[in-house]
Amino acid sequence: MKIAVDAMGGDYAPKEIVEGIELARDTYPDITFLLYGLTDQINKYLKNDDRIEVKQADEVIAMGDEPVKAVRSKKQSSLVLAATAVKDGEADAFFSAGNTGAILAAGLFIIGRIKGIDRPGLATTLPVVTENSRKNFVMLDVGANADTKVLNMYQYAMMGKYYAQNVMNVANPEIGLLNNGTEADKGNMDHRKVHDLLADDGDLNFAGNVESRELLNGAADVVVTDGFTGNAVLKSIEGTALSMLHLIKDNIMAGSLKSKLGAAMLKSTFGNIAKAMDYSRYGGAVLMGVKAPVVKTHGSSKAPTVKNTIGQIKQIIDSKMIPELNDYITSHKDHLDQIKDSIKNK
Amino acid sequence: MKIAVDAMGGDYAPKEIVEGIELARDTYPDITFLLYGLTDQINKYLKNDDRIEVKQADEVIAMGDEPVKAVRSKKQSSLVLAATAVKDGEADAFFSAGNTGAILAAGLFIIGRIKGIDRPGLATTLPVVTENSRKNFVMLDVGANADTKVLNMYQYAMMGKYYAQNVMNVANPEIGLLNNGTEADKGNMDHRKVHDLLADDGDLNFAGNVESRELLNGAADVVVTDGFTGNAVLKSIEGTALSMLHLIKDNIMAGSLKSKLGAAMLKSTFGNIAKAMDYSRYGGAVLMGVKAPVVKTHGSSKAPTVKNTIGQIKQIIDSKMIPELNDYITSHKDHLDQIKDSIKNK
Repeated sequence: MKIAVDAMGGDYAPKEIVEGIELARDTYPDITFLLYGLTDQINKYLKNDDRIEVKQADEVIAMGDEPVKAVRSKKQSSLVLAATAVKDGEADAFFSAGNTGAILAAGLFIIGRIKGIDRPGLATTLPVVTENSRKNFVMLDVGANADTKVLNMYQYAMMGKYYAQNVMNVANPEIGLLNNGTEADKGNMDHRKVHDLLADDGDLNFAGNVESRELLNGAADVVVTDGFTGNAVLKSIEGTALSMLHLIKDNIMAGSLKSKLGAAMLKSTFGNIAKAMDYSRYGGAVLMGVKAPVVKTHGSSKAPTVKNTIGQIKQIIDSKMIPELNDYITSHKDHLDQIKDSIKNK
Repeated sequence: MKIAVDAMGGDYAPKEIVEGIELARDTYPDITFLLYGLTDQINKYLKNDDRIEVKQADEVIAMGDEPVKAVRSKKQSSLVLAATAVKDGEADAFFSAGNTGAILAAGLFIIGRIKGIDRPGLATTLPVVTENSRKNFVMLDVGANADTKVLNMYQYAMMGKYYAQNVMNVANPEIGLLNNGTEADKGNMDHRKVHDLLADDGDLNFAGNVESRELLNGAADVVVTDGFTGNAVLKSIEGTALSMLHLIKDNIMAGSLKSKLGAAMLKSTFGNIAKAMDYSRYGGAVLMGVKAPVVKTHGSSKAPTVKNTIGQIKQIIDSKMIPELNDYITSHKDHLDQIKDSIKNK
């Protein structure tokens, strides 16, 4: 398989991207790479070009660029050229650590939606940190769409099911709807409609509403949410975890010698905690609902995270997640059309 | 001043409520209390009835009762009778640790809205845990309304300003809009409209959009949000903080003797952290936009939290927050009507 890489996206690009791709190349013997970017900069860091083809891109989409405009106007950017390679069948998947909005726009406008999916959604895997047979879960949409409709959330559930099944290897994944209470009638009008649609769908293992308080305790394998709330919840989890680690550190540094000694003795414990909360271990965020894997990692990603994310892309391809999702949607066209009509008539 | 108390609401009612009210009575010599509930149960715990009048209520609204229905049908419940005492001018404020929905319904239907406020919102004070001149912030709505409109969010900003000014003693409080990015054009349609309304309002010190990642770092004094997102974010913060404390504990218990010894040495540090994250120190959630203070604490509240919440109610009354908010709204009626029209015409 071949992966098209935006080598210029991310805070440490191209250095950490190039080094991460070399790690991935050494780990996965069946992957070859197309690396798009400023070739003279890339070649400074590339030690060995075995299975790595460097392709010149004259432009770079910056983190602050307006996404849709940048994708439309910077045709020679590493991001647009890498996405175009996927569209043209030259590569099987797209990877970037760059401008999130531009990645979403490239996925949507260049690579294109799966027929029958109205709006792609961004899926992130998060850890379950308390004792549970479930070790992680996938949540979507975490920010591709700020204005999410009932139909979109219903489709997120289907897409999340395929992600959990194929990439996380969960048989018959439990699907929860993020809501402001667990009772069936909770939430705003849209969430109540989504609840009923999911409850009525025999192909989905719907576990009902879940509250954000229970997410890290493993409330479900797939957590469905509108993109506005999902984004806010994801950032709250990140922010709270980081704030607590700071708080612990500040308290230790302000404390007595005893507290510093205690902290030294707990060093490996704190290491385990930081590891448990580090969701880059699970790879990047996946734009679900487009025709090929479009995967982004945090802008601050370093080489090992880049390598992990390539492993995730390989799993998406090897497991045939996208063709299977596509087959399901094609073969259930009538059913999905009925759902669309029922939403309109409600 | 006189506070009407639902003595039967909460997981530890009436014991912890009665004990908390006695603590508050001993702390605040200018407060008298009307305690509604099953008098024989209340009297079992009441040691001294100085400034505490016990009033019989034959019914109790349970945590699982359907809120609006319960408030309408259980006319003799402690919750309804306490709210009615406020409505009838027999008491200045309402307090309960009971069924949240029923408290909101009683505030709305019995005590009633301030004229000019379309929908009351629930405000919670949260701690700022990293180094910052700001020690806490107020966020609203955290769940009174699952379907929040542009006008409601605009009014939350005004109400939050009065809360921060009068109760938190912040001069010219900075107001932030919870959104999925800091740029002015971020968010869904409603949030963009709210952003522009707040930015144009000369009476509000608007600091722009804030992300949930930055809340505990002290992004603003007042954080305005729709009730659905606010509820999800509040529960994410709670859930993540609790999960991290569990994670630390589990890792320590599973660790070596060295790690257990280290934890013993960090005992006071962990105590500080638990204290910093415990937002019951700041009192309860306040239903902003009704004619009298309506304040609820967590169902799991014990006597000291009940006492703190009574202190918060005293501050709301002493600072004249509600009359001042009311005066502002009355004197700006034309301006507020223009805003309403402008939202309709958009």
